[in-house]
Amino acid sequence: MSGPVSIVGAGPGDPGLLTLRAVERLERAEVVVYDALVRPEVLALAPAARKIFVGKRCGSRGVSQSRINALLRRLGRLGRRVVRLKGGDPFLFGRGAEEAQALAEAGLSWELVPGVSSCLAAPGLAGIPVTDRRLSSMVTVVTGHDCAGGPAVDWERLSPRGTLVVLMGLAALPRLSQRLIALGWPPATPAAALSSMSWPGQAVVQADLEALPEAVGQASLAGPAVIVIGDVVRLREGLAQGGSRHAGQEALAHT
Amino acid sequence: MSGPVSIVGAGPGDPGLLTLRAVERLERAEVVVYDALVRPEVLALAPAARKIFVGKRCGSRGVSQSRINALLRRLGRLGRRVVRLKGGDPFLFGRGAEEAQALAEAGLSWELVPGVSSCLAAPGLAGIPVTDRRLSSMVTVVTGHDCAGGPAVDWERLSPRGTLVVLMGLAALPRLSQRLIALGWPPATPAAALSSMSWPGQAVVQADLEALPEAVGQASLAGPAVIVIGDVVRLREGLAQGGSRHAGQEALAHT
Repeated sequence: MSGPVSIVGAGPGDPGLLTLRAVERLERAEVVVYDALVRPEVLALAPAARKIFVGKRCGSRGVSQSRINALLRRLGRLGRRVVRLKGGDPFLFGRGAEEAQALAEAGLSWELVPGVSSCLAAPGLAGIPVTDRRLSSMVTVVTGHDCAGGPAVDWERLSPRGTLVVLMGLAALPRLSQRLIALGWPPATPAAALSSMSWPGQAVVQADLEALPEAVGQASLAGPAVIVIGDVVRLREGLAQGGSRHAGQEALAHT
Repeated sequence: MSGPVSIVGAGPGDPGLLTLRAVERLERAEVVVYDALVRPEVLALAPAARKIFVGKRCGSRGVSQSRINALLRRLGRLGRRVVRLKGGDPFLFGRGAEEAQALAEAGLSWELVPGVSSCLAAPGLAGIPVTDRRLSSMVTVVTGHDCAGGPAVDWERLSPRGTLVVLMGLAALPRLSQRLIALGWPPATPAAALSSMSWPGQAVVQADLEALPEAVGQASLAGPAVIVIGDVVRLREGLAQGGSRHAGQEALAHT
């Protein structure tokens, strides 16, 4: 028995990266409450459902979190089969847990359907493993999306010996690059900006930590982007030699 | 056009957490090369394929990485439709990238099919978000599986202000707990050991960082386990109130 409200990860974008359970929940949904960055092909998997868009972006006048929580509680009380659809994994910078808590506190049941997170999938699809037994034994994931508030990232403690992945990091990239170099990260640390991975128009810009902001500006990258910083980025060339399926789709901009 | 060798993430265990693409690749596979921790129901999705088990565990006399690489190259050269199936996501502590590189260097094409990683899914299914805008803005993932060799984790730099996730961390847990406390992490830091999440018999043991090793011993946890350490673990109680689908399956052992 599953609860009426399924908090479902939609993965990085490509409908092929939805889980079987996500598809099953969408197919039987009566209501789908969804964010920005969910593709029309994914919503089309729930043809009979009412679709409610609650996406918000930094600085925009979107639907507030408390209103989303109230909406989910109301739908849950009505006993509707609800899918709360979120990009990536709902419990990584997704506020999925806040929504689950709002439901739980109201005595309503919910379930999590984990998704493929772009923190791993975006680098992977660009040919970058976030760990490698020769180069990095740790990966730290942060968000560049400062307007969320909350506790600060402990930048001083981030280790250049590990891999750093920054979600939603495009706007914050110039400041991020300067900050890490000021903290002692080598300016030549390999880095890459990965835009819209698994979407049409995905693009990769690779440069060293110091040069990446300018390279990204020249390439006019837009859209949701993942920044990956660390020695593992160097593996990308070796992995592309044989030509992966995804490498062929990329608009490459090596510098 | 996809390459002959698909490096596919099988997710945390539950076949419902396979991606659509993983299933499609399995269904048309001629050969499946798989590791330990892949469930029979998942292999059953490739009824026509030859199955080759290459799993190895720490200290056992399994198939060496170089032999796996050679096997994949041989199968790739034969033009077989090969699925290289790995638990979780192939590019997080999975050596998937080493195998991709071996194929690329031989001029063979490959593709990555990212998977749901237990680094997020196991905590999530236990009701623990690895980040939360009230409690933690960063998550670091390491492995407790020391026998892999490679560069050391920069333990001194791990921040108690972030969330720490340790994959394959059960054997290393007593040492891990001592080490973090010696480095200044509060002994009362909330922590949990998550065993076999999304498998039958999944279990959660929650205790503070200092008490967790003993609590895990008393609960006789076994199987693949994810350790999660940080304030976000406290959110678990609030999320369980309404009773998630997964909470009902757990053998709980709060201390």
